[in-house]
Amino acid sequence: MTGRRSFPFSAIVGQEEMKLAILVAAIDPGIGGVLVFGDRGTGKSTAIRALAALLPEIPVVEGCPYRCDPGDEQALCTECRSRRPLRAVMAPVPVVDLPLGATEDRVVGALDIQRALADGVKAFEPGLLARANRGFLYIDEANLLEDHLVDLLLDVAASGENVVEREGLSIRHPARFVLVGSGNPEEGELRPQLLDRFGLSVEVATPRELASRIEVIRRRDAFERDPAGFAAHWSGAEAALRGRILAARQCLPDIVLPDAALERAARLCLALGTDGLRGELTLIRAARALAAFEGEAEVGDATLRRVAPPALRHRLRRNPLDDTVSTTRVERAIQELFGP
Amino acid sequence: MTGRRSFPFSAIVGQEEMKLAILVAAIDPGIGGVLVFGDRGTGKSTAIRALAALLPEIPVVEGCPYRCDPGDEQALCTECRSRRPLRAVMAPVPVVDLPLGATEDRVVGALDIQRALADGVKAFEPGLLARANRGFLYIDEANLLEDHLVDLLLDVAASGENVVEREGLSIRHPARFVLVGSGNPEEGELRPQLLDRFGLSVEVATPRELASRIEVIRRRDAFERDPAGFAAHWSGAEAALRGRILAARQCLPDIVLPDAALERAARLCLALGTDGLRGELTLIRAARALAAFEGEAEVGDATLRRVAPPALRHRLRRNPLDDTVSTTRVERAIQELFGP
Amino acid sequence: MTGRRSFPFSAIVGQEEMKLAILVAAIDPGIGGVLVFGDRGTGKSTAIRALAALLPEIPVVEGCPYRCDPGDEQALCTECRSRRPLRAVMAPVPVVDLPLGATEDRVVGALDIQRALADGVKAFEPGLLARANRGFLYIDEANLLEDHLVDLLLDVAASGENVVEREGLSIRHPARFVLVGSGNPEEGELRPQLLDRFGLSVEVATPRELASRIEVIRRRDAFERDPAGFAAHWSGAEAALRGRILAARQCLPDIVLPDAALERAARLCLALGTDGLRGELTLIRAARALAAFEGEAEVGDATLRRVAPPALRHRLRRNPLDDTVSTTRVERAIQELFGP
Amino acid sequence: MTGRRSFPFSAIVGQEEMKLAILVAAIDPGIGGVLVFGDRGTGKSTAIRALAALLPEIPVVEGCPYRCDPGDEQALCTECRSRRPLRAVMAPVPVVDLPLGATEDRVVGALDIQRALADGVKAFEPGLLARANRGFLYIDEANLLEDHLVDLLLDVAASGENVVEREGLSIRHPARFVLVGSGNPEEGELRPQLLDRFGLSVEVATPRELASRIEVIRRRDAFERDPAGFAAHWSGAEAALRGRILAARQCLPDIVLPDAALERAARLCLALGTDGLRGELTLIRAARALAAFEGEAEVGDATLRRVAPPALRHRLRRNPLDDTVSTTRVERAIQELFGP
Amino acid sequence: MTGRRSFPFSAIVGQEEMKLAILVAAIDPGIGGVLVFGDRGTGKSTAIRALAALLPEIPVVEGCPYRCDPGDEQALCTECRSRRPLRAVMAPVPVVDLPLGATEDRVVGALDIQRALADGVKAFEPGLLARANRGFLYIDEANLLEDHLVDLLLDVAASGENVVEREGLSIRHPARFVLVGSGNPEEGELRPQLLDRFGLSVEVATPRELASRIEVIRRRDAFERDPAGFAAHWSGAEAALRGRILAARQCLPDIVLPDAALERAARLCLALGTDGLRGELTLIRAARALAAFEGEAEVGDATLRRVAPPALRHRLRRNPLDDTVSTTRVERAIQELFGP
Amino acid sequence: MTGRRSFPFSAIVGQEEMKLAILVAAIDPGIGGVLVFGDRGTGKSTAIRALAALLPEIPVVEGCPYRCDPGDEQALCTECRSRRPLRAVMAPVPVVDLPLGATEDRVVGALDIQRALADGVKAFEPGLLARANRGFLYIDEANLLEDHLVDLLLDVAASGENVVEREGLSIRHPARFVLVGSGNPEEGELRPQLLDRFGLSVEVATPRELASRIEVIRRRDAFERDPAGFAAHWSGAEAALRGRILAARQCLPDIVLPDAALERAARLCLALGTDGLRGELTLIRAARALAAFEGEAEVGDATLRRVAPPALRHRLRRNPLDDTVSTTRVERAIQELFGP
Repeated sequence: MTGRRSFPFSAIVGQEEMKLAILVAAIDPGIGGVLVFGDRGTGKSTAIRALAALLPEIPVVEGCPYRCDPGDEQALCTECRSRRPLRAVMAPVPVVDLPLGATEDRVVGALDIQRALADGVKAFEPGLLARANRGFLYIDEANLLEDHLVDLLLDVAASGENVVEREGLSIRHPARFVLVGSGNPEEGELRPQLLDRFGLSVEVATPRELASRIEVIRRRDAFERDPAGFAAHWSGAEAALRGRILAARQCLPDIVLPDAALERAARLCLALGTDGLRGELTLIRAARALAAFEGEAEVGDATLRRVAPPALRHRLRRNPLDDTVSTTRVERAIQELFGP
Repeated sequence: MTGRRSFPFSAIVGQEEMKLAILVAAIDPGIGGVLVFGDRGTGKSTAIRALAALLPEIPVVEGCPYRCDPGDEQALCTECRSRRPLRAVMAPVPVVDLPLGATEDRVVGALDIQRALADGVKAFEPGLLARANRGFLYIDEANLLEDHLVDLLLDVAASGENVVEREGLSIRHPARFVLVGSGNPEEGELRPQLLDRFGLSVEVATPRELASRIEVIRRRDAFERDPAGFAAHWSGAEAALRGRILAARQCLPDIVLPDAALERAARLCLALGTDGLRGELTLIRAARALAAFEGEAEVGDATLRRVAPPALRHRLRRNPLDDTVSTTRVERAIQELFGP
Repeated sequence: MTGRRSFPFSAIVGQEEMKLAILVAAIDPGIGGVLVFGDRGTGKSTAIRALAALLPEIPVVEGCPYRCDPGDEQALCTECRSRRPLRAVMAPVPVVDLPLGATEDRVVGALDIQRALADGVKAFEPGLLARANRGFLYIDEANLLEDHLVDLLLDVAASGENVVEREGLSIRHPARFVLVGSGNPEEGELRPQLLDRFGLSVEVATPRELASRIEVIRRRDAFERDPAGFAAHWSGAEAALRGRILAARQCLPDIVLPDAALERAARLCLALGTDGLRGELTLIRAARALAAFEGEAEVGDATLRRVAPPALRHRLRRNPLDDTVSTTRVERAIQELFGP
Repeated sequence: MTGRRSFPFSAIVGQEEMKLAILVAAIDPGIGGVLVFGDRGTGKSTAIRALAALLPEIPVVEGCPYRCDPGDEQALCTECRSRRPLRAVMAPVPVVDLPLGATEDRVVGALDIQRALADGVKAFEPGLLARANRGFLYIDEANLLEDHLVDLLLDVAASGENVVEREGLSIRHPARFVLVGSGNPEEGELRPQLLDRFGLSVEVATPRELASRIEVIRRRDAFERDPAGFAAHWSGAEAALRGRILAARQCLPDIVLPDAALERAARLCLALGTDGLRGELTLIRAARALAAFEGEAEVGDATLRRVAPPALRHRLRRNPLDDTVSTTRVERAIQELFGP
Repeated sequence: MTGRRSFPFSAIVGQEEMKLAILVAAIDPGIGGVLVFGDRGTGKSTAIRALAALLPEIPVVEGCPYRCDPGDEQALCTECRSRRPLRAVMAPVPVVDLPLGATEDRVVGALDIQRALADGVKAFEPGLLARANRGFLYIDEANLLEDHLVDLLLDVAASGENVVEREGLSIRHPARFVLVGSGNPEEGELRPQLLDRFGLSVEVATPRELASRIEVIRRRDAFERDPAGFAAHWSGAEAALRGRILAARQCLPDIVLPDAALERAARLCLALGTDGLRGELTLIRAARALAAFEGEAEVGDATLRRVAPPALRHRLRRNPLDDTVSTTRVERAIQELFGP
Repeated sequence: MTGRRSFPFSAIVGQEEMKLAILVAAIDPGIGGVLVFGDRGTGKSTAIRALAALLPEIPVVEGCPYRCDPGDEQALCTECRSRRPLRAVMAPVPVVDLPLGATEDRVVGALDIQRALADGVKAFEPGLLARANRGFLYIDEANLLEDHLVDLLLDVAASGENVVEREGLSIRHPARFVLVGSGNPEEGELRPQLLDRFGLSVEVATPRELASRIEVIRRRDAFERDPAGFAAHWSGAEAALRGRILAARQCLPDIVLPDAALERAARLCLALGTDGLRGELTLIRAARALAAFEGEAEVGDATLRRVAPPALRHRLRRNPLDDTVSTTRVERAIQELFGP
């Protein structure tokens, strides 16, 4: 339904790590998605929608089903390349939900049966991945999806393009989006191979202090009773946050990564015994994005320390002799390396 | 079959909690459905049908498959938005059964094959969710449905709209209804994730006192032998109840929620350790609806106490050290908090 | 094959309880079907066919696929309502077998593919449920059917109408029939939920006395060697029985149910701990039908006692401390309540 | 391939019980099929084909897909009833194999897709059951067929007609055939319910004496080297056997069943504890057919004794305290009843 | 690909039993296929292809999809029977692989969809079984095929014709081929019922002597480097072998089987306790073919001894008290019977 | 997306064995694919893509879907054989990924439905195997593919042609490619039969030394920040490597294999007890390719030693008494044979 107003991102109570991870992924979508573990009813979906609503509208090529960016020659889809001149229109940043019961056809796109029957041509009908291009794709209870579908989504999120090889179609189109999945560890785990491919992971929990709980309910109550007034109250905070995100995106390519930071990242991953090098690469990339958000010129220790838990927590091997939870192990390693 | 007369709601013997929960959900459909646990043959289906028959007919946009409310500009479907002027006709409040063997296609709606073949257009053929809009959707033995279908129904009930992404269709339409599911815990449990998404839950049981049983059978016997006479006998009670429901709906937005009540709700949920904040939100919402039904201006302790069991009972974690049943745990927590 | 002559109902040796249950269900089809447990080869199918052949032909609306009763305005199907005048023809009482391999489509009816392809219209093609209207539907080895199909059959048998929601069809038509299912407890049990929905249950066994066995074989042999002669021999008994059934149907609405009988029924069910109130309701209904068959004006103790075992036997919970079979438990409770 | 010559039935070495059972079933096809247990490579298929080849050609209605008998007004198919005059042609007795991979469609018949597409009519395309009418249907390794298919075949074999309710078809046609199934008990058992529905069962084994084995191989070798000569050598024996079968069929209706024989049959089944009365009925029927084959006027003790093992062996309940094999139990009961 | 040159059969190092079995099956295809057990990479496929390449081209009816033999009136397909005159062309002996992923449709043949749609006729499109007629059908890892497909292949191989009953087709065509299956006992066993239906079985193993291994590699290396030169070197040996095979086929019908040999074969099978009589029949048939190959006029003891292991090894029952492998048991029985 | 620049092969840090195996397979594609075991994120996919990008473009027949080599008459596809003259165009060496969700149809090719419907002809639509011809086919997590698909890919890779027998198609086309599969032994093993069919196997691991890790990340960082500059820096190394590969391919047919080397290869396999002779054949073939790459005229001991682990490691039987890993067992055998 059009006109549904989002809850302001700035008005979300607590859940700092989740908000940080989403912001970082919004600044550098190449980080590879965010996986949110934890209790039901902790506002995961609300946060995504809030962030997307906060972002300014984006210029898109008129009529392009993938919403190509008219200012990015490199990333144009095949059809936009042959379109000249490119006419731009403004569109909101999309947030696409993977609804329950969506078929693989509908996710990746499929043969357009109608045109096939009517005109005898094999036309491609874009799916949800196309619609999520340049925005967010949200999967609730990602651990309940079939592995191959999660894997496919991660593939596309990582490569930034959707490759379809089926029903005689052979299509590629841009599909750059921030994948946000929620998972409840009690309901079935993701395979380590899938975990590793998510960029960041965060843990959320129902707040345990009375004051927070009351504040959450009070704000939600206020919002539901008078959405417009509530939005007006928070508009200043929203504008400020929007400004920081846009600035961060702009200065991201200039953030310096000192050799010392690179070494620290490598030492930390070595100490934790993460497989492969995705840990280091994500850690550095997230640190750059956070530095940009914080307005710093280079990646410092404090920045590395803040992004290390979401970047590494889900990449640890189970250690049968040490059953402390992952977050504790990451933090202990940080303290040993960086000092307390 | 038209002309089938319903048993009067007021004539139902006992089952007070179930009747209360259905009434509350009818006053505020946003509460998110009612789940009824318990014995077979305890009149669950009868109660729903009775309540719907009690309610006055509603104005609907003529020809609209979703029965849009011509008085609610915000909630019009896409087609009604472009219809002008909107012609209103009166229609009964629908009660839709999910019959055994109904396919997912038929529930959510599907491509209209006939029109696709005949006219070569992709038209949407509304399903049961469309038909239930502004009424009740009843699922007998919800625990026997596949999880994904229950989940989908809860999704739609919560959001008030049905999103269809399949077979090249991409449709949304209003689907605001009270979902009532019955379940028999002996036959297979619902996953905690699904339980949590139902607004209220109640437990029903076959009456154990002879007098009640005889009274039930006597009334049913009288009804079957002379439906018209029976209805006449109960028409006064029915009219009174109808009046209270309509009044409650009207004054619902004005019910005050004192800070003390909000804090008590939060304390109660904290004491019970419910996950997420759906417990508090539902508890407050149900309390408001009950206050409205009782003609009170604000939510008081007595109201909170009455709706706490149906709002919270199904949100408790299993406690392996404390196997008292959920209802008892809720009541004990209420007594500790509110006094005996 | 036309012209196949049935074995006379009156000539069936023994199996008194099964014959009684079928007769009672034929007098009041609203009782909800008969489930026959027991050995193979005990003449279940023979009994149904014999009873149907015994009944007089019924007037049906000419051309109506549901064989509507032209004398019952209330129960006419949608099409018959618009047909005027209704032309009546006589037709035998149908006995429909659910053949092995019948698909759900064929049971409930389905889209008429031929007309869909030829004329582009969605017409309904009635199934076995339509054909069984006003007659008998027989399922051999009901415990081998999928639960959802049995459940669906019971639903239809109870409500008297068949609701079809599939393939874009939305159809209801009358489907009042006596459902008779046979089951062999050694081959897979019915779920308690399904058991409870059958009106009556009976147990049959191969006769253990030599004389009975010889008599059965002798009669069957005589029938097979000279069907016409055998029928002639039994025609008097058949006519008498037919008369009693028709009389019972006519006086059924006038049978009085004294308060004492109602209370006894409730006490008996309470003592047996049956779930829900279907036990009492069926017991009373069956007692009325039997009283009508026996030519009595009101339901007395003797009548209640005779129908209690078939009405209640299948509604008992398993009692792990008391493994006496259900029939014994019912009879013990009867004796405690009614005296020996 | 036409022209394949069968091995003569009379030239089969040993396997007396199997040959007897097939002969009896060929004389009275209503007995309900023969189930052959035992080793591989013992000539089961050979025996069926040999018997069919031995029988004289039968008159059939020209053009009728069910090969109706022009001399049997009662058993004509629907179409033959409206054909006048009926033109008869001679045709061999069919032996139909259920080939591996035959689909249920092909067994029972199905909608003729070609005519449905071409002419828009729902025509029935007869299946293997139609082709087996008035002949033999042979299923190798019946225990490997799905239960529902075996059950369906037994149903049809017992009733003599094939009822098809699917794809909008509602067809019945005559399907009277002798069903012969082979089974290897080591590979998966038939359910007791299916066992009971076979008329006769026999056990075959590879001969254990050298002379028999050599004789089998020698005859087969002779047959393969000179089929025509071999057939000539055995033609006298074949003609004699053919004469006895035809005579037996003719006098079958006149065979007397003395009361004493009937009582003995019932006593024997009672002693063995067979479920239902199919045991007695089959025993009597098989005894009549054997008496007819042996040229006797009534059923005597010797005849009953010969057919009792194949008629009853597969109807015994497993007795956990008595693990002697079924054949032994039947023979012991015979001796106790008839004397040694 | 055309023009691929085969490795010469005569140049295969070792594997004497496998080569013998294939030769015997090529001389008398009625023996029923060869099953090769054993290690990977031991040249099974190479041997089949080599033998087929060695055989001279065969005359076939021009245009016949089954490659009917114009000189064998009896075995002509239905269409060739009505073709006159039959024009012969020469064609190589086919070797058909059952490729991974071949569907049952493609194996047995199916309705020609193209002609059905275009011309509205039900035409048969021949499958791999048709193509293998008069040649070899090779299945790698037969134990990985579904049992019903293996069974079907054995059926066809044994009967020499392919019977298709599906999709409204009812087709038979000649399909005489030598079935060669390879199996690795470590990967899943064939059912005894299937084993018994293979004519011969052999065991192959990687050579364990260094010299053999080197010789195999050396020859393969020489072949790969200069196929033409290698073929020239072995052409004399190939011609001699071809001559022996053709001579053996011609004199096969005249080989005498003395009574003593027949008795010895029966005694051997009796001693080994093989089920059924397929053991004896195959043993005798293989002995005749080997005698023909060796240029002998009658079957002698030496010949029987050579073919007994491949003919009987796979027909032994597992003996739980004697776990010596099958080959040893066969050889021991031979020595006891024939002397050392 | 076109224009994506590859990371230079020469700039890959460490992973020497993997790089060697890929180079050897690129020099002689007949070796049969490379299987890479080990940790995630170790640059397997990067290496393949880098090598393909390094190779010069190849001449292909214009318009041929299989990219036939116009200079290799023998390997032309059926259509190219009838094309004259063959027009050549240059094309890059293809690297085809098997994307998740690719169907078997899409892998092997299938009936071109569009042309079948439009023109009524059965045309073949080439699949991924066709597209990979003369290049690389990369399968990530080959152990998660269904066995039959892996087996099919290995078949095609080994034979160099793709045989399709389905949907009425009977097609063969050239499909010569280097198959590279990655596998994670923790996630499910490949069957020994499949393992054996891969030519080479290598083990990769995340580097454990800090310096390597830092160097990997530094290079990747430099590449991502300035792809063009990075490429320029490494262009000399790339050109040198390209030259060595091309030279190796050219002199490969002339590499001498001394008898001593052949014997050593055989002795080594015998000592290790590898099944079949694929071990020896692959070892020799890989040794020849490595000798060619190293510019040597004949295969010496040093070359054999280097390729023995990748050629043999995956062909060892599990030895329950010796659980040292495969690599160690191969190396120990080498030392015993070749000396330390």
